[in-house]
Amino acid sequence: MTIETPLDIPRTPQDLSLTQKAALGSGQSFWITKSVAGLPQVLLTDGPHGVRRQTGAADHLGIAPAEPATCFPPAVALAQSWDTDLVEQVGAALGAEARALGVDVLLGPGVNIKRDPRCGRNFEYFSEDPLLSGELGAAWVRGLQSRGVGASVKHFAANNQEHERMRVSADIDERQLREIYLRAFQRVVTRAHPWTVMAAYNRLNGIPATEHRWLLTEVLREQWGFDGVVVSDWGAVGDRVAALAAGLDLQMPGGDGEPDEQLAEAVLSGQIDEQLVDVMAARVIDLARKAEAGRFVPNEFDADAHHALAREVARRCIVLLKNDGDLLPLAPSGRVAVVGHFAADARYQGGGSSRINPTRVDVPLDEIRRLAADVTFAPGFSLTPDADQVALREEAVRAAANADVAVLFLGLAVAQEAEGADRPDIELPADQLDLLRAVAAAQPATVVVLSHGGVLRLAPVADVAPAIVDAALLGQAGGGAVADVLFGVANPSGRLAETVPVRLPDAPSYLNYPGENLHVRYGEGIFVGYRGYDARDLDVTFPFGHGLSYTTFDYTDLRVAAAPDGVTATVTVTNTGPVAGREIVQFYVSVNGKVLRPPRELKAFGTIDLQPGESGRVEAFIAREDLAYWETRTHTWTIEGGDYEIAAAASSRDIRLTARITLAGDEVRVPLTADSSIAELMANPVTAAALGPMMRRGQGQQSDAAAEELGIDTAATISGIPVGKLRSLSGGQGLTRTQLDALLARANEA
Amino acid sequence: MTIETPLDIPRTPQDLSLTQKAALGSGQSFWITKSVAGLPQVLLTDGPHGVRRQTGAADHLGIAPAEPATCFPPAVALAQSWDTDLVEQVGAALGAEARALGVDVLLGPGVNIKRDPRCGRNFEYFSEDPLLSGELGAAWVRGLQSRGVGASVKHFAANNQEHERMRVSADIDERQLREIYLRAFQRVVTRAHPWTVMAAYNRLNGIPATEHRWLLTEVLREQWGFDGVVVSDWGAVGDRVAALAAGLDLQMPGGDGEPDEQLAEAVLSGQIDEQLVDVMAARVIDLARKAEAGRFVPNEFDADAHHALAREVARRCIVLLKNDGDLLPLAPSGRVAVVGHFAADARYQGGGSSRINPTRVDVPLDEIRRLAADVTFAPGFSLTPDADQVALREEAVRAAANADVAVLFLGLAVAQEAEGADRPDIELPADQLDLLRAVAAAQPATVVVLSHGGVLRLAPVADVAPAIVDAALLGQAGGGAVADVLFGVANPSGRLAETVPVRLPDAPSYLNYPGENLHVRYGEGIFVGYRGYDARDLDVTFPFGHGLSYTTFDYTDLRVAAAPDGVTATVTVTNTGPVAGREIVQFYVSVNGKVLRPPRELKAFGTIDLQPGESGRVEAFIAREDLAYWETRTHTWTIEGGDYEIAAAASSRDIRLTARITLAGDEVRVPLTADSSIAELMANPVTAAALGPMMRRGQGQQSDAAAEELGIDTAATISGIPVGKLRSLSGGQGLTRTQLDALLARANEA
Repeated sequence: MTIETPLDIPRTPQDLSLTQKAALGSGQSFWITKSVAGLPQVLLTDGPHGVRRQTGAADHLGIAPAEPATCFPPAVALAQSWDTDLVEQVGAALGAEARALGVDVLLGPGVNIKRDPRCGRNFEYFSEDPLLSGELGAAWVRGLQSRGVGASVKHFAANNQEHERMRVSADIDERQLREIYLRAFQRVVTRAHPWTVMAAYNRLNGIPATEHRWLLTEVLREQWGFDGVVVSDWGAVGDRVAALAAGLDLQMPGGDGEPDEQLAEAVLSGQIDEQLVDVMAARVIDLARKAEAGRFVPNEFDADAHHALAREVARRCIVLLKNDGDLLPLAPSGRVAVVGHFAADARYQGGGSSRINPTRVDVPLDEIRRLAADVTFAPGFSLTPDADQVALREEAVRAAANADVAVLFLGLAVAQEAEGADRPDIELPADQLDLLRAVAAAQPATVVVLSHGGVLRLAPVADVAPAIVDAALLGQAGGGAVADVLFGVANPSGRLAETVPVRLPDAPSYLNYPGENLHVRYGEGIFVGYRGYDARDLDVTFPFGHGLSYTTFDYTDLRVAAAPDGVTATVTVTNTGPVAGREIVQFYVSVNGKVLRPPRELKAFGTIDLQPGESGRVEAFIAREDLAYWETRTHTWTIEGGDYEIAAAASSRDIRLTARITLAGDEVRVPLTADSSIAELMANPVTAAALGPMMRRGQGQQSDAAAEELGIDTAATISGIPVGKLRSLSGGQGLTRTQLDALLARANEA
Repeated sequence: MTIETPLDIPRTPQDLSLTQKAALGSGQSFWITKSVAGLPQVLLTDGPHGVRRQTGAADHLGIAPAEPATCFPPAVALAQSWDTDLVEQVGAALGAEARALGVDVLLGPGVNIKRDPRCGRNFEYFSEDPLLSGELGAAWVRGLQSRGVGASVKHFAANNQEHERMRVSADIDERQLREIYLRAFQRVVTRAHPWTVMAAYNRLNGIPATEHRWLLTEVLREQWGFDGVVVSDWGAVGDRVAALAAGLDLQMPGGDGEPDEQLAEAVLSGQIDEQLVDVMAARVIDLARKAEAGRFVPNEFDADAHHALAREVARRCIVLLKNDGDLLPLAPSGRVAVVGHFAADARYQGGGSSRINPTRVDVPLDEIRRLAADVTFAPGFSLTPDADQVALREEAVRAAANADVAVLFLGLAVAQEAEGADRPDIELPADQLDLLRAVAAAQPATVVVLSHGGVLRLAPVADVAPAIVDAALLGQAGGGAVADVLFGVANPSGRLAETVPVRLPDAPSYLNYPGENLHVRYGEGIFVGYRGYDARDLDVTFPFGHGLSYTTFDYTDLRVAAAPDGVTATVTVTNTGPVAGREIVQFYVSVNGKVLRPPRELKAFGTIDLQPGESGRVEAFIAREDLAYWETRTHTWTIEGGDYEIAAAASSRDIRLTARITLAGDEVRVPLTADSSIAELMANPVTAAALGPMMRRGQGQQSDAAAEELGIDTAATISGIPVGKLRSLSGGQGLTRTQLDALLARANEA
């Protein structure tokens, strides 16, 4: 299809008729906006780990074949790099490809929180942690938009499951919504200024995200300052007029005339103010102009260079979960038995709208053969249900027994983790576990390489395998990256971005997922991911932030200092092992105050590359706003005054050093009312002066008798009484309501 | 004080002026209603495990000394009897005492659910299970009211914590509210017809319980048919007019003229309809007339007989948690070292408004000395902070080492569990655990007797003590009951009414308790108590329903049959051990359907007394309504059709026999709308006929390509789409909204 880019085009809504303006509010067809009065059309297309530019006429569900493009590691893997520079590079490369393919907006990044390991789309998201998700999402946007291609941060908001995703209401309390589910979006919006934000399919507290004025206007625009276009997820709009009023600009896909007509009619009938349409039209015009300008940004797309980049990125995404007895790296000279279907048929991306048509795919087995002299292969298992798994297993056991080492490629089939469906469990298939046990029994030197988009229960793997390499989904060049790590060409430095629990029922959301009757209550509150495992003091198989290296690192000299608007933390890291390596230093913060908190929360991270014996400083800045909690009484981000413990850690459960810093708190000023407790009144100088003598009289009369007679703490009991009920509780004694109201007014004015 | 009972008294509100009617809406003083126009006054007073009739003029907090009365086992212990007949007897005895003390309404039973083990008032409540709570609460009301004394079921509703109890909002979703938190109240109200229901201090979903019209009128009166008086908890009313409008009749305590004036003014100003005042007045008049009539019910109160009953009841409440090697019962001839402060200073009730001034108190040590020849005593520890615990411990160890058996009385001090404050943890004091370890090291034959009102972490006790007797809080005759059980005069038959978790963080409510900023989210949903431990497959130290005996029981021949309005289950129980005993058979139901459920739920229970070698049938009826779940789409109790597994069990984790029965389900008829999914439309014959051909065409076009290209299940993806979004998703193809609405209307009418 051709993109029209004439020169004489409207600059403001005032140049357009109502019908023209309304027409800007929905697309022309599946992927393209309308050319109204000669305005440039904008081509949006699926991402985020590649450009899925469909060829020919788009079909009605957007699932026709796509142009070849580089398949970079999906977010599940990319997050394991914990590397904002690398992610920014990936974004820039995606921008270059998008440009080359005529794409103006690439639909990503996905920064939804991995609330439950069963969510079928978790492979498209970064992490269970909002800071990590937000940092990486912002880097991705910066990279992409540096090439004149717009991002679409998605899916806004609380789209954390596939089950009934188009109808379910995510029922979330205010604090957890702000601290967990909106925080990554806030970071991306305020720091990277994406061109668009994508409103999600689901409802939030009963209201469709596409019609959620609080979400799309109050929070996104008024509080965060977003000035771009809110686009709907494809097919997410139910009521076009309500969506416009809520702040949704662009309904996609296009092709249906009804929404535009509804908007125009709503204005003509007085249902909505035309100004709402003007504002929407101005934003879409602005997007079109950004897209047009973007087309002049110089770009190049060299498929070979991008494949090489994809391999470099994939290496950085691999997490070495376990390496007993330094089994890895393998010697190139040894006899290697490669086992497992996924060694020959790489599993490197998930299913659904993000699926890229890769420019090429590196096969792990081939890449291993390039690095090792003596390699045998046995598939070990088959994804075909009626295959003879026993025969395949026996063949693999023989191969493993006759080698020096067995490398098993296990994982999930793409059909098990795809957009549109959640997983029922987090298990590896039973035949693969049977294979593993049989191989490990025959060959103690067994390495497991895992390909998967969602968290797996790994206790049965860790029980028998001395070495485990988490390859997640590494994109088209993952095969070479895995080979590089197995043979020490690359030293792994990735870290888990999601906890691997001992068992699914330990997951904080376990009993509140995926809800029923179209409601899912986020009953675990702020205790999502490691916040929940830590708060319940549960063992995990591999903690958030975990990852080994072929070398070792020591941490010394942690220093924490107040800085303008935040805290700086610096720590010395020394490579104490035999090879060069990269360490990812994680800074967790613990606050032992009055506010309910997770035991620790990630607040910053930094990386350092070190030669053997080399030392270096890692410095991180923790913004004051990142230390704040969401105060539901004042509806503001608030710093609690007191001691903050900053930990420099190699994982969320491998705390190396801690230091303390005292921070001044923000005042939480809540007006006193008749519902305020005696304790609250006694904490206010005005009311304490008035009530104090009365309270002391009351206690003098009662406390001895009460302690003796009832075994209660009278003072504490009285402290909890709302002052407005004191009179009725005391048979009409004390302040009248009029006297009380006057006292409260005086205190609130002071 | 004198109760006036003149003969010429008003019978209806029409006999009264507005001022007089309004005056009926609040008390005259702390415990008594007004004598308006000669209407008899009603004396209400604290319970529920005894009559706390205050002497002299009531003070302003109701904590003056009280008349002596029998202190029966508090609800925490009473529930462990699992015996409705016994609880009814206790209720009748309480009624007799109330009558004798001039009390018309005794403020009980407390049927709130033990949501969290830390709740400071759990000792006043029965169980974590609503069926057990409801059955026992109903029995208590039947017994009490048989003596012409009214009950006040409390605290309605969701008053499940003491922390900020007068202000906190319990934020509870509809299904869990109905199935867990209201279910016991519903059972008591509909089956036992209490004279009054007490509106709680707390808020429910933001609205004060005393002003909650949905709760006090729609649910309580309109749905459950309650026709008595709703009385406020003492001091719970904030806005008298709002409370009246919500359905609250009687504000207590009295003595303040303001509320009555406010009611009259609200009528005169037109703020409320006078009819509301009339209805309230009629109910209070009716209560006064019931109270008056009750005074003519023959009653007797024999303190000795009631003490004997209290001992018999206490025996039935004791749970034998552990008895390795049949260490219990003890031989009367052996040398017994009794250790522990609570052996000499019995801990037998909790602190707060329920605290009874007992007619006498049996001391465990004295009672043991009555049954055993050679008894030594060492306090072992002291509740006084500055005591020399080490010296006390060493003395106890010497005593234990020189005896044949050591009996340790451990537990919590009354100050640790009282109304008005929650516990910070569920630990026994560290010095007591130190004592236990030291004694058990010196004396392998160590029996632990526990006195406590709330659940304790018992893993450290079970680790070292071969025998554990749970004496909870047994009331004034508990000392004798414990001695009876220790020496086999009584064979224990009590069962836990609350799970003993391995550790507090395992508790389903752990991270959602007690909330913050005056809101507590009941995030664990319906998974409260054993429902939660089972659903997460967590180990527990002692499961709900657990309790040993000095004999053993076999279960055979479980039969389940459909009955009118329910299911009957019968099972044969045989006493296979050496002594007579009582078995409590628990019937749990599991449903493996589409509705989210706990793995099993208690639905009935029955008891049987058997001589050695004797067999008998235990029969239980499970009402159809008890098998229903609360359907949030239709807001009704609903039976899910399908297979029901009925288990006959000795505890929630000691399932002896299971049987299945298939039940027809209730139809859940939810109108189809534009938000209904394609799957839902394909399940309706009318819409399926219309949409089917279109769907099949669409799939034929897409599915092969999609499966290949995207790795998704296209049919499943399409099934989840709301029909109203199909058109915009397909670029304007398919039914228009008008056509769709017509189709849906046709389907809904069919």
